[in-house]
Amino acid sequence: MKVTAIANSNIALIKYWGKRDPKLMLPQNGSISMTLDGLYTITTVEFHPNYERDILILNGRELSEGKEYEEVVAFLNIVRETAGISEKAKVATENNFPTAAGLASSASGFAALALAASKAAGLNLDKRELSILARRGSGSASRSIEGGFVEWMRGEKEDGSDSYAVQIAPKDHWDFRMITTIVSTEEKKVKSRAGMAQTVKTCPFYRDWLLTVDEDLKAVREGILNKDFTQVGETAEYNCLKMHATMITTKPPLIYWNPATMEIIHAVQAWREEGLECYFTIDAGPNVKV
Amino acid sequence: MKVTAIANSNIALIKYWGKRDPKLMLPQNGSISMTLDGLYTITTVEFHPNYERDILILNGRELSEGKEYEEVVAFLNIVRETAGISEKAKVATENNFPTAAGLASSASGFAALALAASKAAGLNLDKRELSILARRGSGSASRSIEGGFVEWMRGEKEDGSDSYAVQIAPKDHWDFRMITTIVSTEEKKVKSRAGMAQTVKTCPFYRDWLLTVDEDLKAVREGILNKDFTQVGETAEYNCLKMHATMITTKPPLIYWNPATMEIIHAVQAWREEGLECYFTIDAGPNVKV
Repeated sequence: MKVTAIANSNIALIKYWGKRDPKLMLPQNGSISMTLDGLYTITTVEFHPNYERDILILNGRELSEGKEYEEVVAFLNIVRETAGISEKAKVATENNFPTAAGLASSASGFAALALAASKAAGLNLDKRELSILARRGSGSASRSIEGGFVEWMRGEKEDGSDSYAVQIAPKDHWDFRMITTIVSTEEKKVKSRAGMAQTVKTCPFYRDWLLTVDEDLKAVREGILNKDFTQVGETAEYNCLKMHATMITTKPPLIYWNPATMEIIHAVQAWREEGLECYFTIDAGPNVKV
Repeated sequence: MKVTAIANSNIALIKYWGKRDPKLMLPQNGSISMTLDGLYTITTVEFHPNYERDILILNGRELSEGKEYEEVVAFLNIVRETAGISEKAKVATENNFPTAAGLASSASGFAALALAASKAAGLNLDKRELSILARRGSGSASRSIEGGFVEWMRGEKEDGSDSYAVQIAPKDHWDFRMITTIVSTEEKKVKSRAGMAQTVKTCPFYRDWLLTVDEDLKAVREGILNKDFTQVGETAEYNCLKMHATMITTKPPLIYWNPATMEIIHAVQAWREEGLECYFTIDAGPNVKV
């Protein structure tokens, strides 16, 4: 069976940075995101006995080796194991936005892949199971299974069965706008996966970062439910700065900001001084969301 | 008596950020700097019974109120108290570089003022006493009393008598070059004094920042004595990033970097990848030193 699925990218208001279990993709901290309408991945998966090996077509280009290819094969192995099948698959996937530039392409990518691959393998998963499956591909993908405002819970269990995403509020709960500025479409040199592993290992501020996240989660959760723009915006912006502080103090440092990033940061601060209430957030890349 | 003194600015390789005693200007941590040949302050002081109030002429402009004026008067009061005099003074001071733009104008400024005012008041202080006096005006000024490579010791005593600067090595010990790039001559919105007080109070990473500084001090001290450029450069660059991480996570955040700052940071990283060994450091302002 050939199945096509679409999943939207999401941008975290409270960031996920660092895993406690790299194999199961269990996070060190919970996170809250907003699913984006405009940025999505569309993915088609077919398992077939005729395929001798997995085939990946990413944005029209066939890949048969490299990190992306290996990550997709590892993910398909999880799906095959769960479904009890052994056929190889053909995966065709396309993003309508730049890949690996801090715009959560792996979030929408693995969410779409989880949807399409599980269906194509004959599985019929509920949202919770889908979120857990997507998480195995990329942590933030667990949040792209739902729309609107979404919280990915850290969970406590070792097997990861309580680390999945739930919707805090649907999209139409609140007219909250996020503008994604594209200051660079280049692929970043250090991808999030490698970057966060380095941070957990070498950043002297990582312990204190974790200690502050629960408070931020609470503030944003409440802010969303109460439609308190100031509370959500201030907390998200500060949370983003704290995450980037852990990044720049990683060894070697992860300095994702570029000149245009700084221009937008200062512009947002200036607009706010002039009375236009807006906030910025920046993921692991130079692109700013306002 | 009218006395003129010159003091050079200094740029910290291991940064000072945060006071444990704001009145005595006692630092939370030790610091190491390099005194700069090119940037200096020249200051003339005269105490005279004819003056009815202190007069300050800063870069040719007479100031009779505001923060700078008050800081200078407070400093003159310390000198008068130490010397047992009561005459008001006329102070004329000039920087040959932009004031309050992260180029340590207060370091050279208060060092020159300490030299000129103490002499003009009839005091004959040794270097240690001068360093302690300059520290009362601005912490980093304690380091501008010496040339070459200088360490300002944190000290333990409550009266500050063991918190002064000593030379680690004279200028001619090592042909170590620092290039100061001027990306902005604008005065910063939040001066160092207010900024560091905010950081100590609100930054969640400040505790961990302090825990890392002793190791950095040791690495740079050893590196200077052994002329180990890699060790000094890597440690200084990382120390600078850690300090800026505490700044951007201050409430409200202190984001001193601007677009040109980022351009130079990325240029230094690129040069290094190409084999040109160089490092950056940035003080509380957008200007980068390479």
